Amino acid sequence: MMKLYDSPSAPNPRRVNIFAAEKGLELESVVVDMRAGEHKTPAFFAKNPSGKIPVLELDDGTCIGETVAICRYLESVAPTPNLFGENPVETAIIEMHHRHIEHELFSPIGQAWVNGPIVGSMGIIESIPAAKERGDLLTQAYYKRLNKELSKRDYIAGDRFTIADITALCCIDFAAGMVYLKPADDLEALWQWHQRVSSRDSVKNTTPAMSLPS
Amino acid sequence: MMKLYDSPSAPNPRRVNIFAAEKGLELESVVVDMRAGEHKTPAFFAKNPSGKIPVLELDDGTCIGETVAICRYLESVAPTPNLFGENPVETAIIEMHHRHIEHELFSPIGQAWVNGPIVGSMGIIESIPAAKERGDLLTQAYYKRLNKELSKRDYIAGDRFTIADITALCCIDFAAGMVYLKPADDLEALWQWHQRVSSRDSVKNTTPAMSLPS
Repeated sequence: MMKLYDSPSAPNPRRVNIFAAEKGLELESVVVDMRAGEHKTPAFFAKNPSGKIPVLELDDGTCIGETVAICRYLESVAPTPNLFGENPVETAIIEMHHRHIEHELFSPIGQAWVNGPIVGSMGIIESIPAAKERGDLLTQAYYKRLNKELSKRDYIAGDRFTIADITALCCIDFAAGMVYLKPADDLEALWQWHQRVSSRDSVKNTTPAMSLPS
Repeated sequence: MMKLYDSPSAPNPRRVNIFAAEKGLELESVVVDMRAGEHKTPAFFAKNPSGKIPVLELDDGTCIGETVAICRYLESVAPTPNLFGENPVETAIIEMHHRHIEHELFSPIGQAWVNGPIVGSMGIIESIPAAKERGDLLTQAYYKRLNKELSKRDYIAGDRFTIADITALCCIDFAAGMVYLKPADDLEALWQWHQRVSSRDSVKNTTPAMSLPS
């Protein structure tokens, strides 16, 4: 069975777990002890030179790092239901929306996270308050854009559920649960979409998002 | 003919132009006047809700934003030579390396750029000096990693030229030419690779990278 180097509720492995659940694929979960720095050991760097999870290890030992590279591989192993696009144009449009989410929403959330109080208190990296503030502002601005877009269509990339919804859900849940960046209550279309995707079996039956006590 | 909304020598349209040249595809170049803010007009937002170039417009008016979405579309239109991978495992490995370049090299270069003196002098965004410094450090660290990796293989993702090389070349040339982040002279394997890819016809015959007077 394929192994997934995983960490409970971290947003990127969660993307892979939801993706695999959509496909009905079972992966053997290998929990990496990130507090103990297990992802920064030579053994783990041999699996992924970036020292990051998730990593998918195939039966022959081949290791694939990077969430989207892993999902694309799983799509080729289990093409149904399709999550990346059925034809060249649809594939390109889904990829466009997916990258907008990754670069213009997940990336500022990441900046707010690495420059915020929780990561700061771990002593790994020095917080840059102005970078956190910029991350916060860009995230809130993108939530508004997304709300507008989702008032015109049911899913991130069009009229059906795709990889772009999985990424958006996992990064918004992470932002809301760990970075104090919950979308405002009045973004109705965004919250309706959130409910729509959160009620899927693939989401309900996988590990929930990590969340700080409120 | 497909139209490419372009800006001479900007790193992302350059990626598409090199990719298309590898395929022998001709695109009609439509230069967007970014100094005049043409990419932030309602007409342009209708083409790409992110207000960014490049955008590929198909004959039927369909618009595809995001460099990699465009390149993936071009790969489907003109599959030879293959630049994204020939089979599921190779495709995943290329995507992994490509994303490492995008997230761990291009992204800090971008941070150094938006927080650096040139963008600062345009008055679009307030520079965060600590974020620039972090971008510089991460970029130099990644150059060293890349040099080590390229001492073991000829191309970014393995033994042949792929999309990952195009991205790495365009972001390194941009960093060297516009962000004062040239790789150190003693990174020999990196410079040998740079020469190897720069000598390709697709690179030589497309618009060169933008560069400030030294």
